[in-house]
Amino acid sequence: MTLNTINLKEKFSMFSKYWSPHVIAEMNDYQFKLAKIKGEFIWHEHDDTDEVFIVIEGSMNIEFQDGMVDLSEGEMFVVPQGVAHKPFAENECKIMLVEPKGVINTGESGGKMTAPNDVWI
Amino acid sequence: MTLNTINLKEKFSMFSKYWSPHVIAEMNDYQFKLAKIKGEFIWHEHDDTDEVFIVIEGSMNIEFQDGMVDLSEGEMFVVPQGVAHKPFAENECKIMLVEPKGVINTGESGGKMTAPNDVWI
Repeated sequence: MTLNTINLKEKFSMFSKYWSPHVIAEMNDYQFKLAKIKGEFIWHEHDDTDEVFIVIEGSMNIEFQDGMVDLSEGEMFVVPQGVAHKPFAENECKIMLVEPKGVINTGESGGKMTAPNDVWI
Repeated sequence: MTLNTINLKEKFSMFSKYWSPHVIAEMNDYQFKLAKIKGEFIWHEHDDTDEVFIVIEGSMNIEFQDGMVDLSEGEMFVVPQGVAHKPFAENECKIMLVEPKGVINTGESGGKMTAPNDVWI
């Protein structure tokens, strides 16, 4: 085994594109991804899985059909499987996502904000 | 669905016992747990799963049979399935663990440091 620690700040410094999740670690068949987000994402859902958002720096919100959650640094939220959601960040926000391998950022919606999958950093 | 955000600092303020993981969230069949650690844990392994350590505050290390990793705030490490490890923290360290439901803190080793499983906070 390799004894490499994963430093979140260092990993964040290695990319700048918004809404483009980068894989930093795998645990069994799950991945930990970092993303920088700013502005409005699209409505989408993930039919097969829950999805975890953890805010590492900054703040964001997630809109649902029946409400909204505000998330700041050190806060997390689990978006349940199949629930439509729309992330938004007024200013740049750094987040960690945890979800199974193969999950696409735009879920079942597709479109031009769909990022390449399984991009490691 | 409930729209409750999970605030890590707030959750950490709700318990003080060392080496006692508290569940704060579930994603599919995985759990996110917080623990405060100080001093020496025991050698153990998890035969069926990888285990993720994320340092939220403080610093710790994990000893392996062939080396050691030092982890500080904002750093994470994935302990591979079946690999014996011994966590240690000189001073109190606050960590988040991510692993499947049902994982016991002392793995296959048991003993008096074994914490009750599935304790939510």
